[in-house]
Order: sequence, then C-alpha cells, then structure tokens
Amino acid sequence: MQKRIVTIGGGTGTYVVLSALKNFDFDLSAIVSMADDGGSTGRLRDDYGVLPPGDIRRSLIALSATSKPLRKLFDFRFENGDLDGHNFGNLFLSALEKIEGSFHNAVRTASQVLNVKGRVIPVTLSNVRLCAELENGEVVTGETNIDIPRHNSKLKIKKIFLQPAAKSNRDALLAIQKADLIIIGPGDLYTSILPNFLVNGMVKAIKNSRARKIYLCNLMTKNGETNGFSVIEFLGVIENYLGKDVIDYVLVNAKKPGAVRLKRYAEENAELVTLAKDYKEQLNKTAILKVDLLTKSGLIRHDTKKLANKILNLL
Amino acid sequence: MQKRIVTIGGGTGTYVVLSALKNFDFDLSAIVSMADDGGSTGRLRDDYGVLPPGDIRRSLIALSATSKPLRKLFDFRFENGDLDGHNFGNLFLSALEKIEGSFHNAVRTASQVLNVKGRVIPVTLSNVRLCAELENGEVVTGETNIDIPRHNSKLKIKKIFLQPAAKSNRDALLAIQKADLIIIGPGDLYTSILPNFLVNGMVKAIKNSRARKIYLCNLMTKNGETNGFSVIEFLGVIENYLGKDVIDYVLVNAKKPGAVRLKRYAEENAELVTLAKDYKEQLNKTAILKVDLLTKSGLIRHDTKKLANKILNLL
Repeated sequence: MQKRIVTIGGGTGTYVVLSALKNFDFDLSAIVSMADDGGSTGRLRDDYGVLPPGDIRRSLIALSATSKPLRKLFDFRFENGDLDGHNFGNLFLSALEKIEGSFHNAVRTASQVLNVKGRVIPVTLSNVRLCAELENGEVVTGETNIDIPRHNSKLKIKKIFLQPAAKSNRDALLAIQKADLIIIGPGDLYTSILPNFLVNGMVKAIKNSRARKIYLCNLMTKNGETNGFSVIEFLGVIENYLGKDVIDYVLVNAKKPGAVRLKRYAEENAELVTLAKDYKEQLNKTAILKVDLLTKSGLIRHDTKKLANKILNLL
Repeated sequence: MQKRIVTIGGGTGTYVVLSALKNFDFDLSAIVSMADDGGSTGRLRDDYGVLPPGDIRRSLIALSATSKPLRKLFDFRFENGDLDGHNFGNLFLSALEKIEGSFHNAVRTASQVLNVKGRVIPVTLSNVRLCAELENGEVVTGETNIDIPRHNSKLKIKKIFLQPAAKSNRDALLAIQKADLIIIGPGDLYTSILPNFLVNGMVKAIKNSRARKIYLCNLMTKNGETNGFSVIEFLGVIENYLGKDVIDYVLVNAKKPGAVRLKRYAEENAELVTLAKDYKEQLNKTAILKVDLLTKSGLIRHDTKKLANKILNLL
C-alpha cells in the first residue's frame, strides 16, 4: 500500500518538500497555514473578504501534473496597471471561492483543473489573523507585519496566537490520523510553521498520530523571527507549541554554503543555522540527523533529490 | 459525416447562436471579431499589450462542456478593489497570452481547460483598432467609442476600417473553406459583425466557400450604429462589404414583442427592426425567411430552440 505522507507548513519550504516527494508513489497530503495576509493575498482578503489563497496556490502548483503553461499560469504575476503585483493563481482561487461559496470547494475545483496528485488541505477554514507578542509586551497584528518587521527586529517573539480562535479543518485531522510520516517544515517558523499548531485540535492530532514525525529545520535564520537561532532553538520553539519528544527526527543540513552565497543573506540579516557541539545533552528522545541537504548553487535551499533520499530512508 | 457549421460574429449574439447549436452533433467553428477595446478588455489591451480576450471568452464559455463552477468562473466579474470590473476569463486569456507568447496558444490552452466542443477562432491575430468614418467626415477611433457613441449618435456611419490592416487567421480561412453552413450574426453590425469582413482575405474566402450562407438579422436597432434600420438596410450594409447575392438566406424574426419589453429598449434609442412590405423588389437571389425567433419574456433575444430548429431546416 502507498505510504501516507503529510507535510505541515506553507510557502516556499513546503513547495520544495512537495516537489521532492511528488514523483514517488506516495499518498501526499499538504496541510497549509492560513495566516498569510501580505501582498496579493492580503489585497484579496481586504477587498473581497476571501481566505488567503497564496500558500494553497504554491502547494497546488507543486503537486500539479498538468501542462507546463497551466502551471506557469497559476504562478503568473501581473506587472503594471490595475493588476500590478497580483498573482493569477490567487485570483483564480478567490474568484472560485466567491462562485462556489466556500474556499473548500474552490480548492477542490482548482485541484481538478491542475490535476493535483494528492491533497492540498487548508489547516483551517476560519478567517483568522496572526498576532505576535514580543518580549517587550508589544503585540504585532497581521502575518505580514511579523514577516516583514516594522518593529525593532531584534526583539524576540514571546508567543504568537490567532485572532479569533480557529477551528481545524476536518480533512487535516483525518490526514494526520492516517499518516505514516509527518514532515514539519521547512519554512518561516513563526509565520508559516507554528500558525498550523495554533489551530484548535491540531497539536492533539499530531501527538496522537502513530506517524513518524520529522522536523525539517531551516537552513537560514530570518530577520525579526529567528535571529541567531541554532537548530536547538528552532526545535525548542516547536516543542513549546507541540510538546517535548513529539518530534522523532530533526533533519539538519551539514553542508556549508560558500561565502558568496551567504553574502546576499547577510544583507537581510539572515545567517546560517548552526548546531552547537553539545546539542545531544539537550535532547531526550529526539534524534538529530546531520546530512548534506544543500543545493549546489544559487539561493540557499534544500536540494529536492537529496531531501527525497533522506526522507525515503526514514519511512 | 458531421455537418460543418461556421459562425461569424462576436459578443452576445454569437453566444446565443453557439448555445443554440452546441447540443447537436455538428462540427462547430466560431470565428470571432478582434476589434473590442472597451471595459475590462480595453484595460488589458492598454496595460499589457495583449489581444482582446472578451469576445473569445464568451464563445469559449458557449462551447464549454466543463463543470458549471468553471464556466461561471470564466464569466466572473470582480467588484470593488483594484480588480473592479475585470472579468476573470479575460484575465485568464491575457495572462496565458503572456506566458505562451501567443494569443493563438492561449486560446488553445483555455479551450482544453474548458473542454470546448469545437473551435473558437480569432478572425485575426493582428493587433488592430476599429475606426469609423461618419457621414460628416469625422473619424471615430476605437471600437468602444463607436459602440458607446460620444459623437452625435444620429450621424450615420459611412464606412469602417481597421488600423493597421489585419492579416487573417489561417484557421479562420480553413474553417470557411470546409464549411457546409456559414451563419453571420446576430450582433452589433459595425462593431461585432463587419470587423470580421475587414480582415484581409475573409471576404474572398466567404465568397469562394461552397457553404450555404445565412444572415441572422438583429432583432433591435442600436443607437449610433443602426438607428432606424430595416432588415433591408442591415442586409444592404452587409452587402457593401461582402458583395451582392453572397447571402443565401436572411433569417428574420416575425414575432412582435409586447410594449413592456420594448420600453426599456426605447430608453436606449433602440427599436424593433422592421421589414418593409416591398422588400422582395429589392432582392435578387437572397431569400428572406420570416419566422418566430423570439424568446417569450425578458430581454428581446433570439430563442435558442427556435433558432436551432430553423437552422436545422436550412442544412
């Protein structure tokens, strides 16, 4: 029988993991955060009262087996004119939501059009905003204001929460319950990964699932969210929301990118995520796997082939 | 073998004819005017340099055999916000044109997505503007300025022309060559029907085609284009562009709508198209068929069932 793999995240990180796994004979479910409120997605939320389409769109494209022009269409961004900055796939999902009367049906119809292999599941169908409480007590409202910080980005995030509280999507709970493997991340910790755990019922479902649970740690820190974070700190924050010893394996990249590749990240206050030598002392049941996961050149990303190999080993 | 039917027009009239014929076992080709430059279509042409998607979209929807939500999506119009007034199907075709690098390929991909039965063929792939010379010598540039007249709407149109000259779409010429039946109209005479004949090679192809040729005359006159026109005047203008005795049959509605239905048209300076008693004296080979073609209520439109019946009789 096909192994059931569930990814939890949103954004580019989830796109990479799904791309890595889509050509294998797995039953894939992508559970996607619904906290985004920036850019084209934010404008659509504000103007039409729809749910955020952006992260769902990326996962749909990742799992699409349709023709290349149609996949490119879904990722097409208009430039100039009234539509400047709007993404076509977002417009597709938002217009469909209006016609179908539900985001759930919109995702289903879009999945048919794109011939999606697997399921893309919004973690919630509640209309929510992400909020962050900083270490000085200040509360930042809106995912995009946390993602692109206007506050002092050196202030640590104390906790995040959803407003109002969100009901979990039954399809998400079901997928988690049936999963053989759950892959969390990579992705922006506070704005793409953790918002999934804030949805009522999600943490309990993950804890109760008999699936092996992997945390795919980020390669780079992110300004305003994870400045200076080591692998253990990433894991620590995950455990604050998910509980101790829930994660079985942390997949950590062991390959150092060259100085030239790191330079453009330094300009954005992003550094390589490190692993202190004494990391084992801080772990109980969770195992850390250090392997080369890095793409050869360009942006510092997870290589889909290397990633697929390692994940296959853990099944 | 399937009978080959070609419609020539654009806009709502063509939508009605295609809807009438789509459920029969015909090989359908819709040749569509490419002169539109108003509304959502005009904004897309101006902002992105694309070809006009609006009339193509309507014909695609008419011939689509896909699910209802997807057909509704293609006709969805955004309200409020940056997208106010934009039609989703137009955005689909324009974004695809950008991705595919040609409008021809965009229409092909959209036809696949919509599971179109038959072919929708832009009459030209040249980027053109429609111009009208009025009886006082004034030249009006742009289809929408003729369609929604800003000039004195009582001035007759002396002639129309395209700027620059347009090359015909080979697919259009081929469809005409192979056709058993060509249906011209209904639709706005100067802004939807005649622009097809202005494209180089189209008139010659129609004349040379062994197909039976029907002109489906409009039910109502249109302000600024055909004020006070009788059937014979509609036909006369068609013949100015197409030549004498090319049309075999003119299908004319013989049923009078009630006064209430006519009233809202009177507000827009639109009147019922009439047929003078001495019409036969003005015709040579062309036959006029007077039949009831009218919908029972609502807008004054051709009834698709009655229309299909009459067209079947002429095959």
